[in-house]
Amino acid sequence: MDSIPIVLTTDFGASSPAVGVMKGVILTINSQANILDLTHQVSPQNVLQGARILGGSHGYFPRSAIHVAVVDPGVGTSRQALLLTTPHGRFVGPDNGLFSGVILGYLSESPSADGSVAIPSGCSARALTQAKYWLDPVSNTFHGRDIFSPVAAHLSLGIPDSDVGPVVDKIRFLASPQPSIEYSSQGNTIRGEVVQSDHFGNLITNITARDLAQAATVTVQIKGREIPGLSKTFHGAAPTVDGELVALISSSGYLEIAVTDGSAANYLDSGPGEAVNIHTSHAPDSHSPES
Amino acid sequence: MDSIPIVLTTDFGASSPAVGVMKGVILTINSQANILDLTHQVSPQNVLQGARILGGSHGYFPRSAIHVAVVDPGVGTSRQALLLTTPHGRFVGPDNGLFSGVILGYLSESPSADGSVAIPSGCSARALTQAKYWLDPVSNTFHGRDIFSPVAAHLSLGIPDSDVGPVVDKIRFLASPQPSIEYSSQGNTIRGEVVQSDHFGNLITNITARDLAQAATVTVQIKGREIPGLSKTFHGAAPTVDGELVALISSSGYLEIAVTDGSAANYLDSGPGEAVNIHTSHAPDSHSPES
Amino acid sequence: MDSIPIVLTTDFGASSPAVGVMKGVILTINSQANILDLTHQVSPQNVLQGARILGGSHGYFPRSAIHVAVVDPGVGTSRQALLLTTPHGRFVGPDNGLFSGVILGYLSESPSADGSVAIPSGCSARALTQAKYWLDPVSNTFHGRDIFSPVAAHLSLGIPDSDVGPVVDKIRFLASPQPSIEYSSQGNTIRGEVVQSDHFGNLITNITARDLAQAATVTVQIKGREIPGLSKTFHGAAPTVDGELVALISSSGYLEIAVTDGSAANYLDSGPGEAVNIHTSHAPDSHSPES
Repeated sequence: MDSIPIVLTTDFGASSPAVGVMKGVILTINSQANILDLTHQVSPQNVLQGARILGGSHGYFPRSAIHVAVVDPGVGTSRQALLLTTPHGRFVGPDNGLFSGVILGYLSESPSADGSVAIPSGCSARALTQAKYWLDPVSNTFHGRDIFSPVAAHLSLGIPDSDVGPVVDKIRFLASPQPSIEYSSQGNTIRGEVVQSDHFGNLITNITARDLAQAATVTVQIKGREIPGLSKTFHGAAPTVDGELVALISSSGYLEIAVTDGSAANYLDSGPGEAVNIHTSHAPDSHSPES
Repeated sequence: MDSIPIVLTTDFGASSPAVGVMKGVILTINSQANILDLTHQVSPQNVLQGARILGGSHGYFPRSAIHVAVVDPGVGTSRQALLLTTPHGRFVGPDNGLFSGVILGYLSESPSADGSVAIPSGCSARALTQAKYWLDPVSNTFHGRDIFSPVAAHLSLGIPDSDVGPVVDKIRFLASPQPSIEYSSQGNTIRGEVVQSDHFGNLITNITARDLAQAATVTVQIKGREIPGLSKTFHGAAPTVDGELVALISSSGYLEIAVTDGSAANYLDSGPGEAVNIHTSHAPDSHSPES
Repeated sequence: MDSIPIVLTTDFGASSPAVGVMKGVILTINSQANILDLTHQVSPQNVLQGARILGGSHGYFPRSAIHVAVVDPGVGTSRQALLLTTPHGRFVGPDNGLFSGVILGYLSESPSADGSVAIPSGCSARALTQAKYWLDPVSNTFHGRDIFSPVAAHLSLGIPDSDVGPVVDKIRFLASPQPSIEYSSQGNTIRGEVVQSDHFGNLITNITARDLAQAATVTVQIKGREIPGLSKTFHGAAPTVDGELVALISSSGYLEIAVTDGSAANYLDSGPGEAVNIHTSHAPDSHSPES
């Protein structure tokens, strides 16, 4: 039992007392709890960013992990509180789309137009309604402390999922902006954008390795600069027009733009939302969907 | 024994090597130690802020917790080193007022005018004088590493409080600035101030829910803006004159001023020290102390 | 077995999801792992700073500790991955000089002119080549997640060092700039520099307590200011010309320049690279090497 990790992800900032207090609440309930931080650097109130981070990271934690996620601008309003159970971990937090990146990997059908998604087979979800597993009183502004952390602590002690509240069959879903792809007989044009600038100033886009899998050559355009070809490392094995910028597939499978030993965000004065266009040419034996 | 958590609170900054080194010292003495961070984001040398955070947070940790607190601009001078034992945790750190917020909850008499307070019944305090529980040598500039952490580690192994040094009957006390309240037959005027701006830019004041408990209506003034009424959540259930600002009671029981999905600190260009005035009207069946 | 701590040091920034993911990888392999952070605030890609921090800090951790260190601008290139075993801990990370500060304490001969150093007796090193202890696949850009963390987790489970790869007899070494010392019959002139500005704005130099051990009097010059004499604490027991600046020996044994209750970095608008000159006079019974 003591080896179930409880993993915290919030927008509270590094080393916030609010994070410390959540850990205190968990330890008060389960003195053997093994508590870890995924990150507390989600941009304030940026639910979509939190969803992307959870989606890309939870697979590296044990399947037994209980994730507590708090990016919750609607705390205290009518938004539900959730337990989402998947084959790769349980997730406790607000029902505001924060688990979109997690559930995406299990979906067999598209999300509804109303911003919700049906719970796919193999997963289950419950609304947190059993107040006996909460702190008393519950504030209107800090459910991470008063509801999510204590529920996760009780789950880590072995209470069954069914104790926390009734099954729900839909949860909120936030769709990430997807790149558009224009196919032609010569090659494709992919129009995407920067979705995040990391600690090193690497600009991470929403264009995936899969989007580029068929290409014989790749030219990346950002802010009027052209980067011909992908590098394998931050050291730019491929020659670059600019001599500084490199484009590569990041460790999470997305195209990223970097500067060797420097910061692309600073160098380009760029960040989330910046347009990134890619022109590819087809490999001799490949075919576009239209050909 | 291995379930006694050791909780660290410092002004060393998130992820400082000095924090890591304190953890190494603790683990070298007690390899089973369960070490947590409350926060390392106390503003540099801001003892009063550290005292507020410890006062408001320690109640969420187990009663068995040993807190190591280091906001210590006078390190190496004649200020004493302390162990304070309370019904809700033990506290190791400098005798400079850092434990004022903790001891406040146990006081039955007012602090002395000389900035000290007598140890209340149910609590006890000792000066750290037994060098056998310290690192050797002890530096003049890092007692967190050389004295506080090793003493806490030895306490977590089960040495009695009496081993660390002799009883002291007074410790330093730092009083927080209190709001002033002007009573009238129509309503009250409360003059307080912002004491902290949190990670989200919420402006937390020194005015408490209790100060407002009797009010039928509340109008909050800050920097020439008026916020009529309190919201229950960050989403401003009450209409606001400004359309952006909301005032609410925070999860720690203080009045705070926020912007829905934004930062009040940025919006108002405001922070600690800013005057906040509140005008209340009495509920029909309530009475001011003067009536 | 569960008491071997795994200590993480990176340039990923406080509370980065990349750090969280490394912890997830370790826990997936060893669910009992005891994971700590030394720091994640090494300046991006600053291998020399990482080397200094590891060199000065690892001695405070248990001798059984396994350190995972990732300051790795050359990730994915031909640089080797290493396990360095010393009498005071094992170190897993890139072979780029990051372990220079650790190995320095064990060296009996000088590093080679080619930037490498022979493994001293009492230590050993191995190249990480056994892919069965890595994640599969291995990315080109995040060996902290894919190689170093899983290798450390397997070592914490008890696999012998010899399992990770073959012995190497040299590793990369980065020399820190050393102060120059000019001896004279009246006293010495020591020319050093600021190597780091810490969280408090203290300016830490590369001049050691040992460099000043023989001096009867010491005058410190920085940016045209003169600080006469060393203080024992941040409170300036020695009078200062400027009334604000103090010079003292830091808790890690280096000369540092501080402002009482303030930031020397802000006060002097200074940081790494700033020249610091010291003039000493000899104690009556001491002799310079030339006398």
